[in-house]
Amino acid sequence: MDVVAGLLTLRERQALRVYATERVHAVLRANPIFDVLNPEFVSRDLIGLNRPTALALPSGASSELTVELFAVPGKVPLYLETDDAPAIETNETTVGARVSDGRVTLYFIPGCATMTPALAERLRGAALVLFDGTLWADDEMIVAGLSPKTGARMGHMSVSGPGGTIEAFRGLGVERRVLIHINNSNPILLDDSPERAQVEAEGWEVAYDGMEIAL
Amino acid sequence: MDVVAGLLTLRERQALRVYATERVHAVLRANPIFDVLNPEFVSRDLIGLNRPTALALPSGASSELTVELFAVPGKVPLYLETDDAPAIETNETTVGARVSDGRVTLYFIPGCATMTPALAERLRGAALVLFDGTLWADDEMIVAGLSPKTGARMGHMSVSGPGGTIEAFRGLGVERRVLIHINNSNPILLDDSPERAQVEAEGWEVAYDGMEIAL
Repeated sequence: MDVVAGLLTLRERQALRVYATERVHAVLRANPIFDVLNPEFVSRDLIGLNRPTALALPSGASSELTVELFAVPGKVPLYLETDDAPAIETNETTVGARVSDGRVTLYFIPGCATMTPALAERLRGAALVLFDGTLWADDEMIVAGLSPKTGARMGHMSVSGPGGTIEAFRGLGVERRVLIHINNSNPILLDDSPERAQVEAEGWEVAYDGMEIAL
Repeated sequence: MDVVAGLLTLRERQALRVYATERVHAVLRANPIFDVLNPEFVSRDLIGLNRPTALALPSGASSELTVELFAVPGKVPLYLETDDAPAIETNETTVGARVSDGRVTLYFIPGCATMTPALAERLRGAALVLFDGTLWADDEMIVAGLSPKTGARMGHMSVSGPGGTIEAFRGLGVERRVLIHINNSNPILLDDSPERAQVEAEGWEVAYDGMEIAL
């Protein structure tokens, strides 16, 4: 939902390419409303996992961009959902993206259930990581009466606490760390909250509409 | 598209009712992505044309609201599209909404191909009309190189010119007139454009994100 709904607000005749896994392309095909993206102007390109793919850039672009999608720990399948089911890493269910121009590398990971050693090694020393900032605490949706589900059950690790994002990134040497995909229950959204002060003191940035990042 | 895409940005567990014609409900059913609106919290209510329907308001609401949908002149069906095909009034293809609390009445008409005598009589003396402000001039999409279609062919009358919206509302005695559904090619979007000055001099307002209206 979060990664495809925005396609509906793009201009209908704006030329663009939609790069995605087969799983996401299947969602687009199953929903004819996405035909508003006129195939005369919009191509749909398949990217498999773990295959660095050169993006087609406008002629005259000063550098080349390569994107690689990879699986990250995600939500358990619905049929396995129990209160104590651990997050598991499944093919294509939850993916992150590595984007590089050959000089600097960024990672875009809007959903991640837990930091595994393999993921930590992948991210080590990156120039920029945009990372899952959905929840501050695992039970905040329950406490706020918004949902009966914990973050762990939704496939989102929390920003705070043991095993949380702040802790997991310490020592990885990632130059810029930006929290994205922030739920409206997460107090870091408030400029003047103690939680915002805490993430900033830890060297994290909180994404905002219109944010631009130069690397 | 324009009236349903926003459903995807609502909270998944927020209680609400979707009132729509069968034509719109069919679009929602044909696109499983709208199942994100959890049926436990979101009902889908059918409204026929020309049938005033009392809206279900939260208990404790201080007044009752009635909505009535009605056909307005719209786009010609695709199979009838030719350069000189006139706009026609077809059942459910393009609808407007009349909303009233029994004291004051507003009309919401985001698309309208032409002002007919019947529509003019319907709107006469209303407290508020929110009206199709897609285009300033019939050929502006062509001139800007954005599309080969005229406004007439897309089912939108223009704001300016003979037969345009400014002219069509003169003498109707509508207290407040607000332009909505404004295309990004329409110069009234610019605060300092001569066209903005002209619509405001004619007593029109230009809608903006977050606009609130008290009647």
